[in-house]
Amino acid sequence: MKGTVLHSPGDVRFEDVDDPKIEAPTDAVIRIAATCVCGSDLWPYRGLQPIDGPTPMGHEYCGYVEEVGKDVTSVKPGQFVIGSFATSDNTCPHCSFGYQSSCTQREFISRAQAPVLRVPQADGTLVATNDAPPADMLPSLLTTSDVLGTGWFAADAANVRPGATTVVVGDGAVGLLGVLSARQMGAERIIVMSRHESRQQLAREFGATDIVAERGDDGVARIRDMTDGVGADSVLECVGTSQSMLQAIRCARPGGHVSFVGVPHGVELNGEELFFSHVHLHGGPAPVRRYLPELIRLVLDGAIEPGKVFDLTLPLERVAEGYRAMDERRAIKALLQP
Amino acid sequence: MKGTVLHSPGDVRFEDVDDPKIEAPTDAVIRIAATCVCGSDLWPYRGLQPIDGPTPMGHEYCGYVEEVGKDVTSVKPGQFVIGSFATSDNTCPHCSFGYQSSCTQREFISRAQAPVLRVPQADGTLVATNDAPPADMLPSLLTTSDVLGTGWFAADAANVRPGATTVVVGDGAVGLLGVLSARQMGAERIIVMSRHESRQQLAREFGATDIVAERGDDGVARIRDMTDGVGADSVLECVGTSQSMLQAIRCARPGGHVSFVGVPHGVELNGEELFFSHVHLHGGPAPVRRYLPELIRLVLDGAIEPGKVFDLTLPLERVAEGYRAMDERRAIKALLQP
Repeated sequence: MKGTVLHSPGDVRFEDVDDPKIEAPTDAVIRIAATCVCGSDLWPYRGLQPIDGPTPMGHEYCGYVEEVGKDVTSVKPGQFVIGSFATSDNTCPHCSFGYQSSCTQREFISRAQAPVLRVPQADGTLVATNDAPPADMLPSLLTTSDVLGTGWFAADAANVRPGATTVVVGDGAVGLLGVLSARQMGAERIIVMSRHESRQQLAREFGATDIVAERGDDGVARIRDMTDGVGADSVLECVGTSQSMLQAIRCARPGGHVSFVGVPHGVELNGEELFFSHVHLHGGPAPVRRYLPELIRLVLDGAIEPGKVFDLTLPLERVAEGYRAMDERRAIKALLQP
Repeated sequence: MKGTVLHSPGDVRFEDVDDPKIEAPTDAVIRIAATCVCGSDLWPYRGLQPIDGPTPMGHEYCGYVEEVGKDVTSVKPGQFVIGSFATSDNTCPHCSFGYQSSCTQREFISRAQAPVLRVPQADGTLVATNDAPPADMLPSLLTTSDVLGTGWFAADAANVRPGATTVVVGDGAVGLLGVLSARQMGAERIIVMSRHESRQQLAREFGATDIVAERGDDGVARIRDMTDGVGADSVLECVGTSQSMLQAIRCARPGGHVSFVGVPHGVELNGEELFFSHVHLHGGPAPVRRYLPELIRLVLDGAIEPGKVFDLTLPLERVAEGYRAMDERRAIKALLQP
């Protein structure tokens, strides 16, 4: 079959790759119904994260089970399934504590921008729906695999509670779905730091109450000003740079919570500043598997429509255009249809 | 009067200083019943933290109110009081959230190694006991002013819960009282990283169940081994160096909690390591005022005896000997009697 491979910065190809097949008795092979390009795919695409030779891409997926290994019991061929970008057995101690993305059996999915995908630890990674979903629900269901699950973790890790004043740093798809998540969790005020008209509009649709265009020290001063000098209860850092981390920490009140959900690139935190900031800090790869059943239910119930983050839909073979559009910030997020 | 002044690294003098007096209507002046040397005093004493000329020292105190400013209503002359090392009005938003050590009116007390002390924001900083306490309770009551309050915050910020597996990094007085605090909060297993016989013994008296002498990577490996490869639920970092912070983070399980309560010196945390560690991180100057009423009650009830951390008692004028003994680790903590 053909799949997506990054050869070097800027060089994404849809080309011949090996056909996925069952390799371990705990594997499943699924036919992808929809996949997409992740903000994190842009780090190596932009040359900001080294790759070691041609690298298969893609880790957000949903689709139909084609085949399962002999030890798989919870999903079966024909079922519609969604899984996390990180595999998990869902039984190890870390999984039991709700940190499936630190499962002792964890592997990161990396070949999902393709028509067919092998998923290790299928029992602990995949969640099946009762029925095949209608086509118009696919985009929203796809988001639960990573981008919504990550935005949800951002809000949860930032301790968003009913009535909270929340700041979201970053207006990418994760940040926008962090807004949606914070709204679902009852935040009263949701301030999004964004400079892009179309993203601001979507943020408002998802529940943002305020937009701040300033960045860095000016952005921090603006948030302080808007919160009567106190700072925010919850800050979601959804970028992963040094500037955005500092901005997030400085926007929070003493005792407030800061989450960070994108792999930090070049971030070093000064211990003394963190100490006197008095914030709670929590982040990491989102334990999407913990949230999947609830998020799938919210989507199927029509309570949320996270699929709105996809503002570009392409046939899978034109995946390179999706990368380009997101790299140039012409698209928030590109959906790929096999 | 005479008070304690640090002139340069290693040079502590008990010498003439100005008599404290009411300067603001919210001040109180108290006669010190007992004070002591803090582990944090050793940073400038050792030249590891610059000082800007002769610096008055001391921030742990309890004693009798001598005089109050005209706006002070909650304490009165003759009462026995204990206060935090950080002043607070106990009414600002940060105080309301329980972070009195980030009070908008915060000042750090710095002249307590003396017979008399001016305490700003007396109403929000000091807590009075009903009666004058017996002399043998003074050491334990004194600890609530900082060292116990800080150990307590370390356990609280590390989310110690009944049944928790807890690791304490650092066997100084704060770490030892972190052990006592974790025990009070119901930790099932309390592992202390210590190489000093006398401190290990006191740790066991306070509730430690295990001692680990290894440090750095070896110490981390030992903790991993003792927790079946999982890591600890709660880790209290009570040192403030780069090595101890990394050790603490690496001892915690994904989703576990790491607190840090000593001002970090030269600590830079790598964002990516923190991300993949999946820990919760929280620290800062302990909001002692939040805990004071409860801690004073526990001491007066005889439920805890934190004063055991004082293994050296000196007349105040021999304060320099206290610094020396603690610097050379001959004493855990030196009590000073005016």
